[in-house]
Amino acid sequence: MAEARKTTPDMITQIVLDAYKDAPDPRINEILRELIKALHGFAKAVQLKPDEVISAAQFLTRAGQISSEKRHEFILLSDVLGLTMLAETMNDDLPEGAFEPSVLGPFYREDAPMIEHFDNISRGDNDGLPALVVGQVRSIDGSPIPRAHLDIWQTNNNGLYENMDDSQPDFNLRGQLSADEDGRFAFWTVKPEAYPIPTDGPVGDLLEAGQRHNMRPAHIHFIVSAEGFKTIVSEVFVRDDQYISGDAVFGVKDSLLADFVQVDEPEIAAKYDMVNPFWRLNYDFVLVEGERAKHDFSTTR
Amino acid sequence: MAEARKTTPDMITQIVLDAYKDAPDPRINEILRELIKALHGFAKAVQLKPDEVISAAQFLTRAGQISSEKRHEFILLSDVLGLTMLAETMNDDLPEGAFEPSVLGPFYREDAPMIEHFDNISRGDNDGLPALVVGQVRSIDGSPIPRAHLDIWQTNNNGLYENMDDSQPDFNLRGQLSADEDGRFAFWTVKPEAYPIPTDGPVGDLLEAGQRHNMRPAHIHFIVSAEGFKTIVSEVFVRDDQYISGDAVFGVKDSLLADFVQVDEPEIAAKYDMVNPFWRLNYDFVLVEGERAKHDFSTTR
Repeated sequence: MAEARKTTPDMITQIVLDAYKDAPDPRINEILRELIKALHGFAKAVQLKPDEVISAAQFLTRAGQISSEKRHEFILLSDVLGLTMLAETMNDDLPEGAFEPSVLGPFYREDAPMIEHFDNISRGDNDGLPALVVGQVRSIDGSPIPRAHLDIWQTNNNGLYENMDDSQPDFNLRGQLSADEDGRFAFWTVKPEAYPIPTDGPVGDLLEAGQRHNMRPAHIHFIVSAEGFKTIVSEVFVRDDQYISGDAVFGVKDSLLADFVQVDEPEIAAKYDMVNPFWRLNYDFVLVEGERAKHDFSTTR
Repeated sequence: MAEARKTTPDMITQIVLDAYKDAPDPRINEILRELIKALHGFAKAVQLKPDEVISAAQFLTRAGQISSEKRHEFILLSDVLGLTMLAETMNDDLPEGAFEPSVLGPFYREDAPMIEHFDNISRGDNDGLPALVVGQVRSIDGSPIPRAHLDIWQTNNNGLYENMDDSQPDFNLRGQLSADEDGRFAFWTVKPEAYPIPTDGPVGDLLEAGQRHNMRPAHIHFIVSAEGFKTIVSEVFVRDDQYISGDAVFGVKDSLLADFVQVDEPEIAAKYDMVNPFWRLNYDFVLVEGERAKHDFSTTR
């Protein structure tokens, strides 16, 4: 038998790094190198066992097999490990004070109905208590952005999006709106409600292993855009939601917390044929100059 | 709008670490903490883009969806990233000079036929040129290990295992053998041949992106065990195989390289009804005291 030096873990890592060092695409080359370093570094940090490698493979196989056109378990896995939010945030390149991005989520639909100011995007019979959302879209220098565009979607007070709930009308609680010449907008909706992410797949097992709940605090999704400004995909959260500090997918940022205030204004309620008292949310969006997204958001999941 | 500090990437990492910090199982707790650190560290090192997260999710989804009872794409992914070998090697706890472990691979079958010394495990008509394998199973202190057990499997000279090739007899090129009172063994087989790993799934795309071939250098698999000694799952490689320095799954270790020598011994060939000249491999297995595996290896993939 040959007299050979025992192969060490570090020798294996170097052999693997060397094997991929000629990947011709520079970005893939960089990603593979850092991925191998991180993966092997992780394995060494925990002294990963062979049967744990097999358990991990089984976990990932289940994630792939539960996935479908409508179910993206690996995106959800990225979400609950904070990777989705990290990638958004690392690349947002925004100054302090700008409207910050958050996760798009799986419930976006293109081509929501265009609405006028003070129209109501709640078209169902039992969506919840009315809420008036008002604000202004401004540039980071404080000047209003005329005709800025809002694309809006949210749950009803049962925590359900219309495309997950047959009892709601098509495109319920979705709408698109142009701000006025002064960047101002107003629309009626309902106060959204917290909702669960699916736990019938391996992501559910991961949350359970971490003793984490599977709830997202209540929020309204917004895509805010305007010619000459960077498009921002984000969400505005109900500040006093019970799940606000434990969002299952880590979408919450301090600057995205907003106060839904119950107001008693019978004249306004009567003018728009709403019950009184109602909820009111003031939230302004601050955009930064840049290229407007040409992106089709519906294809990103 | 609230005056809030912009959320930084490091803040997100800390929020995610905190979210999983109460995982009650200490091993899962440790693994999740180090996994989050490694995953976020990797994402930051390459400034991972949101669309790259989606590409990664699509890659992993395909891996799950091509997997089946017989196809384990995530194990293969672990193999080609060197993780499988790393986990084996980190945990082997063996001194210099001991028989080193390597990957089990997906082709093991339990209950291969028991053979006697000098029996031939080649039962096919066209398996290749005969090879006589001889050696001794010893303890690390040099003393022979009587009745040590060998479980053996390999390809024919077309690089095919019998359970992947309808033209071979059942259990062809597989066998189990007990060493004699002096730990010595001998059996006839054929010289194995290099073979490809599957490239019709995402692992194939990864190899292509890395400009790596998909070949495993020729080898014979061995599981060597004895009462009072640690069981070793490994492989012995044909040293002069053209793929020896680029094993697709990184199973090669220096101490596992062995010389198949062509010998001209007409009397031995005649005694065992073999062609002359034939191949000869001498390889000794050195085991270390410990607990014999109770493991059913067939269930590990």
